Amino acid sequence: MKARVLFSGGKDSALAAVILCKFFEVELVTCTFGLLENWKNAKRAAECMGFPFKILNLNRSIIDCAVEQIIKDGTLRGGITKIHKSALEEVAKLSDSVILSDGCRRDDRTPVLSHGEIRSIEDKFDVQYIQPLAGFGRKTIDVLVDRYFEIEEKEGWLIKGCEYEYELRELIGKRYGNDKIPELFPRAHTHSRVLNMKVKG
Amino acid sequence: MKARVLFSGGKDSALAAVILCKFFEVELVTCTFGLLENWKNAKRAAECMGFPFKILNLNRSIIDCAVEQIIKDGTLRGGITKIHKSALEEVAKLSDSVILSDGCRRDDRTPVLSHGEIRSIEDKFDVQYIQPLAGFGRKTIDVLVDRYFEIEEKEGWLIKGCEYEYELRELIGKRYGNDKIPELFPRAHTHSRVLNMKVKG
Repeated sequence: MKARVLFSGGKDSALAAVILCKFFEVELVTCTFGLLENWKNAKRAAECMGFPFKILNLNRSIIDCAVEQIIKDGTLRGGITKIHKSALEEVAKLSDSVILSDGCRRDDRTPVLSHGEIRSIEDKFDVQYIQPLAGFGRKTIDVLVDRYFEIEEKEGWLIKGCEYEYELRELIGKRYGNDKIPELFPRAHTHSRVLNMKVKG
Repeated sequence: MKARVLFSGGKDSALAAVILCKFFEVELVTCTFGLLENWKNAKRAAECMGFPFKILNLNRSIIDCAVEQIIKDGTLRGGITKIHKSALEEVAKLSDSVILSDGCRRDDRTPVLSHGEIRSIEDKFDVQYIQPLAGFGRKTIDVLVDRYFEIEEKEGWLIKGCEYEYELRELIGKRYGNDKIPELFPRAHTHSRVLNMKVKG
């Protein structure tokens, strides 16, 4: 039974994949709007993890719509959740998708789908959407990440991971000028990237 | 690293244990107030699963307090959540507890601890509390249960599992008369019990 995991190349979605691979046949899926080539870093992480990897090109209208919402709200949360929901729906539409998954954690504040939204995706596309880390706190995640992965983790935007924020920054900078970026994107934001596996999942 | 799983002998806590055993050294813990001997069924389920098993005797004042709340509320939810929280705290107090866990699922309505209550247990007792099924919907749980377990599943109260409801029914029946039971306990309630493992976890 195949489980597709939305994969940024960072530690959370990587750990979700390692948990799921004990029970399902994992395929990693990285979404891009074609604005940056940061998906290549996710691809490299997928290769070192040894899982099949797929790029999914999302329609630009999705990120356009998210940017509009972010500018209107003055905060990232709603726009990122909108992109994540669309990404899940696009993966759900793939012909042989039965199980969808991601690296959302118990204490994440963004993206957060409500129970209703989760069940609506499941019913609409006849899929099962699993969040393997939804019941895990930060300490446990750190213990498991340290057991399985060699990672690079830095504050700021130096690591070119494949979270939605990178393409959002790019687009917002182009449309509204680079001065808009520090208003919306936190500086003290930590991103991680999987460099290698210590133990095979 | 040891992970203690609150175990009723039913399919949810059994599946939580099977998921966790891929990453930690699982020990099953069944709580009892000493009003019934239904913990013996949990012990049998634990034996067929091949995990170490522990009985934890909880103080009667916990169930007394839960019964008072249930009578006051006219519904089980708050009282059961109170017992579950106390059970987690008692397991957390055991000298070598680092990881606590249970079979709470994404769509469960009872017991439900808030994020604040979860983090408060973690901080107060310096433990990690994991809910491996918090991100799993019913369909996925059914798929995995069917893969791993032979179970008995029935509506009503015929299966003597070791969920808190059984001792609560006993105590409420004794204190308030058996007529009180159908007012509070749903008839169309399904309980399950693990009879055997199809595949070792």
